[in-house]
Amino acid sequence: MSYHKPCPVCGTPVQMYRNPVPTVDVVVHDPARGIVLIRRANPPYGWALPGGFVDYGETVESAAVREVLEETGLSVVLTGLLGVYSDPARDPRHHTMSVVFTGTASDADMLSAGDDASAAAFFALDNLPAPIAFDHAGIIADFVARLRAED
Amino acid sequence: MSYHKPCPVCGTPVQMYRNPVPTVDVVVHDPARGIVLIRRANPPYGWALPGGFVDYGETVESAAVREVLEETGLSVVLTGLLGVYSDPARDPRHHTMSVVFTGTASDADMLSAGDDASAAAFFALDNLPAPIAFDHAGIIADFVARLRAED
Repeated sequence: MSYHKPCPVCGTPVQMYRNPVPTVDVVVHDPARGIVLIRRANPPYGWALPGGFVDYGETVESAAVREVLEETGLSVVLTGLLGVYSDPARDPRHHTMSVVFTGTASDADMLSAGDDASAAAFFALDNLPAPIAFDHAGIIADFVARLRAED
Repeated sequence: MSYHKPCPVCGTPVQMYRNPVPTVDVVVHDPARGIVLIRRANPPYGWALPGGFVDYGETVESAAVREVLEETGLSVVLTGLLGVYSDPARDPRHHTMSVVFTGTASDADMLSAGDDASAAAFFALDNLPAPIAFDHAGIIADFVARLRAED
């Protein structure tokens, strides 16, 4: 799909191609502590899985590890692919599609709020905070269902 | 990541944001016939899984079903997520990341080469054509490994 953005000087429409913006999120799980959520410092506010945009030239796995480190201070080992979430309404700002991984922290005690986060904490799966931003409550529910299926 | 594209009239740099371009591909499998490959009508040439770009406003599942229909004439029922392939070198033209589904054709006899394809055929997994474009040989190998694991 292409669209046009006006040149800031002369106003000529410049053709651009538009696709959903790829993002990554990670369910960082510790059997004793639960999952990591960050409190977003920017709108839309709420608690969210750590994650962010995939850079051009970067694999989704690298983006996932980088974003978790930037937002939570945790070195994460990815353990699987939970799903790809691409409902156009999932982010109120624009159409994003998120590749969601599961992972474990190399050292859970390193947790600290970093970029874009005003807080970061582990939450037990039966005691999650509110509100949860985006479609992350649904993603977490899918993670819980998978955990139960693996039991 | 942002970059600049010159205005075609006055040359002023217009800021753009650049991310990997999201695509979808589908391994359409029939136990008796094998998997569907299309012969690409455009470079890079070779045989490939049916697939293409995800449109803004479209889910990856919808894009997968649409692209298979456009390229092969098949109505596909998606059966699972095989993986996400995002090596920046996977496409020689630009950085794409592909969400790859498995699926089955509602009516395999409807197979015909459509958009962007000069041929479309089922191939037995032990008798694939050459060359296979992009990283699709590796994707097919992952599919075969999963089939064996499920046996």
